[in-house]
Amino acid sequence: MKKVTAFAPATVANVSCGFDILGFAIDELGDKVSIMSNDSGRLEVKSISGDGGKLPMEADKNTCSVAIQAMLSHLGSDQGFDIVLEKGLPLGSGMGSSAASAAAALVAANELLGAPYSKEELVPFAMEAEKIACGAGHADNVAPSLMGGFVLIRDYYPLDLVKLPVPAGLHCTLLHPHLELKTSDSRSVLRKEISLKDSTVQSGNIAGLISGLFLGDFQLISRSLRDVIAEPSRALLIPGFYELREEIRSIGALGSGISGSGPTIFVLAPDKEIAIMAGKAAEDVFEKIGLEVDVYISEVNNKGAYLLEDQI
Amino acid sequence: MKKVTAFAPATVANVSCGFDILGFAIDELGDKVSIMSNDSGRLEVKSISGDGGKLPMEADKNTCSVAIQAMLSHLGSDQGFDIVLEKGLPLGSGMGSSAASAAAALVAANELLGAPYSKEELVPFAMEAEKIACGAGHADNVAPSLMGGFVLIRDYYPLDLVKLPVPAGLHCTLLHPHLELKTSDSRSVLRKEISLKDSTVQSGNIAGLISGLFLGDFQLISRSLRDVIAEPSRALLIPGFYELREEIRSIGALGSGISGSGPTIFVLAPDKEIAIMAGKAAEDVFEKIGLEVDVYISEVNNKGAYLLEDQI
Repeated sequence: MKKVTAFAPATVANVSCGFDILGFAIDELGDKVSIMSNDSGRLEVKSISGDGGKLPMEADKNTCSVAIQAMLSHLGSDQGFDIVLEKGLPLGSGMGSSAASAAAALVAANELLGAPYSKEELVPFAMEAEKIACGAGHADNVAPSLMGGFVLIRDYYPLDLVKLPVPAGLHCTLLHPHLELKTSDSRSVLRKEISLKDSTVQSGNIAGLISGLFLGDFQLISRSLRDVIAEPSRALLIPGFYELREEIRSIGALGSGISGSGPTIFVLAPDKEIAIMAGKAAEDVFEKIGLEVDVYISEVNNKGAYLLEDQI
Repeated sequence: MKKVTAFAPATVANVSCGFDILGFAIDELGDKVSIMSNDSGRLEVKSISGDGGKLPMEADKNTCSVAIQAMLSHLGSDQGFDIVLEKGLPLGSGMGSSAASAAAALVAANELLGAPYSKEELVPFAMEAEKIACGAGHADNVAPSLMGGFVLIRDYYPLDLVKLPVPAGLHCTLLHPHLELKTSDSRSVLRKEISLKDSTVQSGNIAGLISGLFLGDFQLISRSLRDVIAEPSRALLIPGFYELREEIRSIGALGSGISGSGPTIFVLAPDKEIAIMAGKAAEDVFEKIGLEVDVYISEVNNKGAYLLEDQI
């Protein structure tokens, strides 16, 4: 029986001024999913590793099987699959953990089915899994995890995705402080009404960030990485956030923000050296306040989820 | 005595989802300003034509002289100039009339002074004139009138301008219905608080519009030309607005919006033929409701204000 394994990367959603509309993928860190056809006509999650036993095995609750089921329903297929999930991503960290599992599962299952869908076409199926995992079928993690690079979610009705260019050299440092932050808390602190002025400032910044990505203009990207809408509320939930923000700008990083709904913080840097320095700065800041932090350094991943060659 | 004449074009500010941060210049329609050095050490507005006698001649109230005075102060010069303004733009129409006068005056005076400033560097001086004319030193008309093309005003503190690409073939139809609309009324109908959801929708659309300009993707531009913040309030002040909006999309135009604070409506079109059809559609719509309308058809002007060659 043929087995196919796919990898899907971690992602940063809510990219500062790109709150709720922009995400990007990083390299290396991510989830692996192996899929085999079975004869039961059912989706069966056979094993999950790396999750500390926290993820559900039931096919109607696991993001891998829910995503595949959405694809099979669309295709009108009753194919059964065995699913093996290897988590490489921490849960609930704000790095798109549920999205990576769904994306990897879809890429592997799509391959076994003869690749009827492009990776962009897989996004709506992964969004069904996000509904189960997060309560909302948002695309800002699943789209970049599948498609790679920076992906703009211009609209949901209908879904309108725009893949944006990744300037050469752009690096990301992900900083995961060991503190628990519930997505529901991160969402509840958001203001529901904002001033016209703040909305205009945010528009100027997202327009600047998009322009900076197209122009490869790191300074414009840096000036634009300011979030006046979500960050002022959410940053209060992450001790050391503002001190770190100043530190990383002083060493030449382009800017920082909260990854997803946190607590992970992302830093964008113009080269690997500064990305490494940002990681060290974060270790210093969090050590002072008694928090451990995991540091991941990566280029922005422009290819998204992919099949692992030795398994094909 | 040397005389220099410059032309500066009409402009569209508040480009739909680019409310308060984006403007673009059009061809042909605009103002001419002639400047001659004098020995009085003063700025003297010698004549104004085409304004129906409505514009002030006093040097501290006229946008030409106020803009030039700001430049001279920055330069530390006490040079005097005679100024002749030929208005080619209707006043109070939402086509950047005051901005065009200031921009033309600055380009002409800058030339007589030996061109110490680039056109982008002239923008802050023109903003001083906008303070006099509109009560606020906004840049979304003066920057495109000087620099041409689409200009993003990412921020004001400090001023951060980004010139964006103009896709080949892009045309604009300006529709000026003969009705009076005070800028103060247009501003007072704006909501001061907006929902987080509307702000996010607007962010997605401006990000899509900017991407569409860089990619030369007319369909993406079209999908993005939706303003959920200012237009729902302001459109009520312009009879026929929504009927026209549907009409012009049905004939293949990319979208429409209120130019500046109105009443002029701009239409973006993928070619000249559709731009002309949009003009005819507007004549039909406004005829039904008993309003005359002036129609101007133009490419997007990518060069901005310029010196008239026969005068140099």
